[in-house]
Amino acid sequence: MYRLYEFSPSGNCYKARLLLTQLEIPFERVEIDIVRGESRTPDFLKKNFNGRVPVLEIKEGQFLSESNAILYYLAEGTPFLPSSKLERAQVLQWMSFEQYNHEPNIATSRYWIQYLKKEKEYAEALVKKRELGYEALKVMERHLADRHFFVADTYSIADIALYAYTHVAEEGGFDLSDFPRIQIWLEHVKDQPHHIAITD
Amino acid sequence: MYRLYEFSPSGNCYKARLLLTQLEIPFERVEIDIVRGESRTPDFLKKNFNGRVPVLEIKEGQFLSESNAILYYLAEGTPFLPSSKLERAQVLQWMSFEQYNHEPNIATSRYWIQYLKKEKEYAEALVKKRELGYEALKVMERHLADRHFFVADTYSIADIALYAYTHVAEEGGFDLSDFPRIQIWLEHVKDQPHHIAITD
Repeated sequence: MYRLYEFSPSGNCYKARLLLTQLEIPFERVEIDIVRGESRTPDFLKKNFNGRVPVLEIKEGQFLSESNAILYYLAEGTPFLPSSKLERAQVLQWMSFEQYNHEPNIATSRYWIQYLKKEKEYAEALVKKRELGYEALKVMERHLADRHFFVADTYSIADIALYAYTHVAEEGGFDLSDFPRIQIWLEHVKDQPHHIAITD
Repeated sequence: MYRLYEFSPSGNCYKARLLLTQLEIPFERVEIDIVRGESRTPDFLKKNFNGRVPVLEIKEGQFLSESNAILYYLAEGTPFLPSSKLERAQVLQWMSFEQYNHEPNIATSRYWIQYLKKEKEYAEALVKKRELGYEALKVMERHLADRHFFVADTYSIADIALYAYTHVAEEGGFDLSDFPRIQIWLEHVKDQPHHIAITD
């Protein structure tokens, strides 16, 4: 059985948990408290030199890290990854955008505020994160102007990757009220079969 | 014919140029000077809402952005992408690592110093980038301890993605002399058939 090493409030870990659940694949959950440094212990570093969660243990001693690589691995050959070569590349395009433009701003703001409780200490850095996070949201809003989902107009791992931190962006201080298309898309994602909440 | 919109000194653009050359695929190059804002013009934003290079025009009006998505698109079905599902996911794992842990530190330092010429202005931010960039290099050095290439012990787009900014890390103020495995790997990459330099 797959084993998922995760910090459960993390959107990156939620991505893997959501897809595994939607694929109806059973898996074991192992909680790693990153705030207490549990992803940097010598034992954990044997699973992922990079000291981060999620890590998927595929079979005894075989580990895959990076949330979007895990999504791609699990989704290959399923309806969660489009079958055309160009559409698969577009899924990767949006997952790269998520890791480069979205997550470092929106997820990091949420982590600093909600989990480290250091909103005051990071006040100056948060201003820049806010600006860049809103830029990412604007790119998403514009893309959603004439479609329901990010790629091939069907629910895919591109949507899962972007949903993970967008739907909790308010916990990072982002106001989504100026992003009506994103709000509709969030509802579409939530309506998918076997959806689970990040708190589940 | 493919058309590559690029800022030629950019490692992200070099990734696409290197792979296209190694695949012996002819392509047209269109220079976009990002320092002068040419990736943020209304015309360019029609190609990529996110205002970044590289962008690959696959056919008239059909655009793919994000360097690693472009690599994956071009490499599918070629020896540059391993054929097993797990190895493909490992390629994506290293490409995610590159975009999240490596590029924002090593490439951004190089950009600030070499292209914006703002080393003094960004002095404080560069200290943090240096620390995180060296952390990424340590992860690479450790992974290379018992292998020649990043995935499946064969040259793949994972190596191209990581080579792009590692081989010019010194231009960002990084000293590679404490990373002997990385140095050997850089030579292996350089020795591949049809290799071109970033300045070519």
